[in-house]
Amino acid sequence: MEPHRSHCPVNLMVEVVGDKWTLLILRDMIFYNRRHFNELLRLSEEGIASNILRDRLAMLEREGMVTKGRSPEDVHKQKLTYSLTEKSIDLLPLFVEAIGWSAKYLSVDCEKYKPALKLRAGGPAALEYVRQKLLREHVTHVADASQP
Amino acid sequence: MEPHRSHCPVNLMVEVVGDKWTLLILRDMIFYNRRHFNELLRLSEEGIASNILRDRLAMLEREGMVTKGRSPEDVHKQKLTYSLTEKSIDLLPLFVEAIGWSAKYLSVDCEKYKPALKLRAGGPAALEYVRQKLLREHVTHVADASQP
Repeated sequence: MEPHRSHCPVNLMVEVVGDKWTLLILRDMIFYNRRHFNELLRLSEEGIASNILRDRLAMLEREGMVTKGRSPEDVHKQKLTYSLTEKSIDLLPLFVEAIGWSAKYLSVDCEKYKPALKLRAGGPAALEYVRQKLLREHVTHVADASQP
Repeated sequence: MEPHRSHCPVNLMVEVVGDKWTLLILRDMIFYNRRHFNELLRLSEEGIASNILRDRLAMLEREGMVTKGRSPEDVHKQKLTYSLTEKSIDLLPLFVEAIGWSAKYLSVDCEKYKPALKLRAGGPAALEYVRQKLLREHVTHVADASQP
């Protein structure tokens, strides 16, 4: 591991997700349930490049924020499924604050992104509901590709 | 203005603060009350370079997140003071979530950064107290350098 610039909590977070793409990949997994490399690539609204996507997914794996595996229904096709971990799912409150701030100050298309804004309006209960749903769908159901 | 990659709230936020330095500059202004270019440069724990600091401060000014002016006591020295705006102060909840997430998952020095962690533990009341303090200190007290 390379040394950290500091052990300040803000800096350490920035070192992991402080770039133009990482939070967008996590957004696509969290809010759009995209689980495969090709989905994340082709459906990317911002047009992520495949080398950047590959690089960021590898970094997220190293950081313990995504796992790569085969979902039960895909086991014969050998298609890899990316899953969130508790560590990345726990970024949900940060996403919610980001969404609220953007909706207040930036040129957000509020009609198109209504579900995200609704999540924020739902408060802690809505957030916990989504968190539990993501934990069920991502953390327990996918077999680890590194296992035999 | 360049076109946006999308009008998704997460993307729009990332376009503004999604890089390795911008949130650190705002952190230094918000949590350490650094208001001058030289302070932000010399005291930077992560060792920001002067060209990056200059570039990001100019961007933050364009985005309406900092203003540049002379504080009353510095008026004869012509020393420029950077101030936060309501737009940047309203990133406080996002900082708090970032701090909480980092403290849970990353190698944060919890002793050194106790005040930040304490702010998080203080909940909405502590946050609102800091928000009001920053609004008083930054938004109303600094003369605008662009005024005659």
